[in-house]
Amino acid sequence: MLFIEKLHLRIEKCKNPVCAGLDPRIGYVPEFLRRNESESNAILRYNRMLIDALMDCVPLVKLQMACYECYGTEGMELFIKTAEYAAEKGLVVIADGKRNDIGSTAEEYARAYLGSGSNPLDALTVNPYLGEDGILPFVESCRINGKGIFVLVRTSNPSSSQLQELVLANGRMVYEKVAELVENWANLPGMRREDKGYSCVGAVVGATWPEQAMKLRQIMPSALFLVPGYGSQGGTADGAAACFDNQGRGAVVNASRSILCAWQSPKWKAKYSPDQFDEAARAEALSMAADLRGAIDARSHEIKWKGVRHEGSPDA
Amino acid sequence: MLFIEKLHLRIEKCKNPVCAGLDPRIGYVPEFLRRNESESNAILRYNRMLIDALMDCVPLVKLQMACYECYGTEGMELFIKTAEYAAEKGLVVIADGKRNDIGSTAEEYARAYLGSGSNPLDALTVNPYLGEDGILPFVESCRINGKGIFVLVRTSNPSSSQLQELVLANGRMVYEKVAELVENWANLPGMRREDKGYSCVGAVVGATWPEQAMKLRQIMPSALFLVPGYGSQGGTADGAAACFDNQGRGAVVNASRSILCAWQSPKWKAKYSPDQFDEAARAEALSMAADLRGAIDARSHEIKWKGVRHEGSPDA
Repeated sequence: MLFIEKLHLRIEKCKNPVCAGLDPRIGYVPEFLRRNESESNAILRYNRMLIDALMDCVPLVKLQMACYECYGTEGMELFIKTAEYAAEKGLVVIADGKRNDIGSTAEEYARAYLGSGSNPLDALTVNPYLGEDGILPFVESCRINGKGIFVLVRTSNPSSSQLQELVLANGRMVYEKVAELVENWANLPGMRREDKGYSCVGAVVGATWPEQAMKLRQIMPSALFLVPGYGSQGGTADGAAACFDNQGRGAVVNASRSILCAWQSPKWKAKYSPDQFDEAARAEALSMAADLRGAIDARSHEIKWKGVRHEGSPDA
Repeated sequence: MLFIEKLHLRIEKCKNPVCAGLDPRIGYVPEFLRRNESESNAILRYNRMLIDALMDCVPLVKLQMACYECYGTEGMELFIKTAEYAAEKGLVVIADGKRNDIGSTAEEYARAYLGSGSNPLDALTVNPYLGEDGILPFVESCRINGKGIFVLVRTSNPSSSQLQELVLANGRMVYEKVAELVENWANLPGMRREDKGYSCVGAVVGATWPEQAMKLRQIMPSALFLVPGYGSQGGTADGAAACFDNQGRGAVVNASRSILCAWQSPKWKAKYSPDQFDEAARAEALSMAADLRGAIDARSHEIKWKGVRHEGSPDA
């Protein structure tokens, strides 16, 4: 089965496009899990309880590799065990490593994270700065092993504009050119079922730039968007909704801190005690799904309305 | 001591600017080291013997992280043990991970690879696609922990032109704009000794684009260049020499396969048997150093000549 088919089945089953970002920091883990435990053991217990609470309502998880790599060898073990546990529970698992290198080295990264066999990872984020020969080895692994990639196009952080919004001689911006490249890669043989629907090559598009997201939806009709920046980074449900198509498909929206730390937030801490951190995470994920659904519906409605209304008509 | 001072001391001591790329693949390891050993153990023995042979003639090593990450947890251990061994032997150690992410996550990567304490790594390569807030956490670690970074500017691979050579509205190219950003970062407080000489923020500039390297030398007078692409990737000594300043300083030139696999190459295999792979590596590193020295001297000479000659003069 293609990665994109597996992901769509999960989205349909859970009836929402929320991706839970398992980007743990030790400060997020309630005290009762940390007692008499190493940090990495405490985080593993925390991750597993979160996965148990989220597995039937969230289609996928994204593991931020930096949060694991900072624990060295132990961290790599924690990363693999977390990914394995999530995969066992039926979740789609994305490794957020933003890997990039020249062709022969990209092959090694592809072997590391999109390899065959018992590899629990379904997809990897990659950085396009080196161009096509740094991307094609990942595409090849997607084709052979049923995996996916998400290429950084427009990231959610404030200074992403420094490079991504540089204006080109033809009047377009760097991120738009990158989007064109991604659309080409998304249409390479074997990336889609019968050359229709979404591709196993997707794009990272932040929830923090809704106007640009709408433009990117048009430039990349084949790429599913992985949308970071919702919640703690300032992206709104409406901003994220701009990444979806008219049928309310074509994107998954990630939230990390707002789900992981729901138990510490003003919104939930009166209702859930620290030892109910997993229930708080689930409540936040469901609340986010409802929030998104409302925003997506509102946008679709607006798009449909726009199709029939005229300047100056009473409902314009 | 600043990272850049440590590096300069090593370059002066070894009297050459060669960086040995420890990017091992199992096919590079001679049979006698692989017998009755796991792949990662065989590679560790191979790396250590190479380090022993190179430690007095090469100032630094660069570890390509992909080659270690593809062995999972074991690979991370191999990576750390190799880095520790190289550091013990007095070599400067660069982790070639091309890491990149939003600010809060870049902090985790900086903690992982440019942390304090017994961390054997001196520097890390990073990717600029996310702009400044993805770079500053690394700069902060450089300042506090005496470390360095090398920012990708113009990579050595063929398709790097797809993004890096896009022409901007002002007539310049994307990589030139990135170079301007790097020059700014190189001049942040604490990155240089008394604000002169080279900075702890350097740049990756491929040996495969000599004309562009000369331009980049002018845009980034403060950045030391880490130069990949020499040898197996098609970069020549003259191409690499374009990365140096008029005093023959300001760059280190990496070679991986040509040094690691010297024992398999037509150039050396008549002279060295497989169990002398380490001596072959040393011979290739010294040969490369001589090759570079000649090209750097020729370029300096040419630059001096150019200063006095005129169009149409007999020696023009």
